[in-house]
Amino acid sequence: MEKFSRNMRISAISKMLTENPNKVINLNTFTEKFNAAKSTVSEDILVIKDTLSRLNLGRVETVAGAAGGVKYVCGISEEDRREFAEQLCTILREEDRIIPGNYIYMTDIMYNPEIISKAGLILATAFNDRVVDYIVTVETKGIPLAYEVAKMLGVQLVIVRRDNKVTEGTTVSINYVTGSSKRIQTMSLSRKALKSGSSCIFIDDFMKAGGTALGIVNMLKEFDSKLVGIGVMIEDVETPKKLIEDYISIVKFKGVSEEGIAVVSPSK
Amino acid sequence: MEKFSRNMRISAISKMLTENPNKVINLNTFTEKFNAAKSTVSEDILVIKDTLSRLNLGRVETVAGAAGGVKYVCGISEEDRREFAEQLCTILREEDRIIPGNYIYMTDIMYNPEIISKAGLILATAFNDRVVDYIVTVETKGIPLAYEVAKMLGVQLVIVRRDNKVTEGTTVSINYVTGSSKRIQTMSLSRKALKSGSSCIFIDDFMKAGGTALGIVNMLKEFDSKLVGIGVMIEDVETPKKLIEDYISIVKFKGVSEEGIAVVSPSK
Repeated sequence: MEKFSRNMRISAISKMLTENPNKVINLNTFTEKFNAAKSTVSEDILVIKDTLSRLNLGRVETVAGAAGGVKYVCGISEEDRREFAEQLCTILREEDRIIPGNYIYMTDIMYNPEIISKAGLILATAFNDRVVDYIVTVETKGIPLAYEVAKMLGVQLVIVRRDNKVTEGTTVSINYVTGSSKRIQTMSLSRKALKSGSSCIFIDDFMKAGGTALGIVNMLKEFDSKLVGIGVMIEDVETPKKLIEDYISIVKFKGVSEEGIAVVSPSK
Repeated sequence: MEKFSRNMRISAISKMLTENPNKVINLNTFTEKFNAAKSTVSEDILVIKDTLSRLNLGRVETVAGAAGGVKYVCGISEEDRREFAEQLCTILREEDRIIPGNYIYMTDIMYNPEIISKAGLILATAFNDRVVDYIVTVETKGIPLAYEVAKMLGVQLVIVRRDNKVTEGTTVSINYVTGSSKRIQTMSLSRKALKSGSSCIFIDDFMKAGGTALGIVNMLKEFDSKLVGIGVMIEDVETPKKLIEDYISIVKFKGVSEEGIAVVSPSK
């Protein structure tokens, strides 16, 4: 059977761990794949552990017991987080981003995998220490970001819809009032989507008064589940958050300048 | 300045390449990060190149010129692709998946990052050799899958919506007829979403007669752009594809058995 050098095993294990965040991989997977002893693979993993911690690229955790093994937990340095938020602000300040109604056009940003994977890493890192069963979002613009956070935390994504679809089976629909424009909207979720008694984190692209987040809290009550965190890409600080208090954001939006440029700054 | 061993550099470079599919990374990024000579980093990359190719985990390509460097191109072995398709079939055959109207409930599958990252890898690998500017999908269920394919190919995701949103600016709306139920539906896309003259791949969760795909072809014409490929998770082979011919799928769906179980098999 084929043998691999330490270098090669380290390269492959680094890749496999990176691709499976928060998933426990049994050491046997590696010993079988590389035809190597457990002690050898353990030494490989020590090198990877050390590398990630020295370069601030997340960490590798050892999980004891029969179902044990190692798992990669994502992470980002404070410096990289800050640099990303600054870059995002520069993009948001581009001249043609303000569209009629003083909205900021950010669809291209929310659908750019390079940006969204970094933003997802930042939000996932912030929630790394909480016990989470699901990442919840409302369609449509926040879906890629919520998916990235779910992937990084190794949990299922749940998407609340604005309409009812026959392909969803039995659904629960609730009405909620948007906090800023006071309009009544409907959101619905398949009965099969959530197990009762779950802990969820709500991820979205933009937060104004927090009406949607409050709608999610009420929706989760219908599933005997609770919200344990909220993370958004951009929060509008011009609109007071009367409806929701505890959340994190990457960028703060303070309206549009007289020159028609978005006024933004990194959060914290 | 800190020095890193070959093992550590290989671990970190493997991780960085894996996290940035199809993005050219200049060797200077690595020489600066690790305080190492270009020749040293080149040797590290040769080890990674060799590892990925021996284990069938994609490949590392060298891009010459001033803007040159190395990039990771995703890939999956035929064996792993087949194994994944078989596993997906097993999940689709679960007893409670058939819901009223003989629809197959697959929302949980389409929002499961572990499944979707593998499915995205399979579809991206199939389109690796084409020049692609955008991955296009129609909201909602196919978004995570389309996002994964976009990320793997290193391009922007475009999501066509079923409604008009004020936050999208000027939009183009077209009507199209669904191929199976012959209903008229509307889809709309922001003028800012696509550059004219682009080549796009359409990704979706499920394909029946191909009406939505044909709608996308017509939508792209409005942007002087063209469809160069179609990839879906599941295709319904009971409904003849009158509207569209060239596409790939992971699983074939042949209706529901008398016992109320989905009849499915891996494609190809």
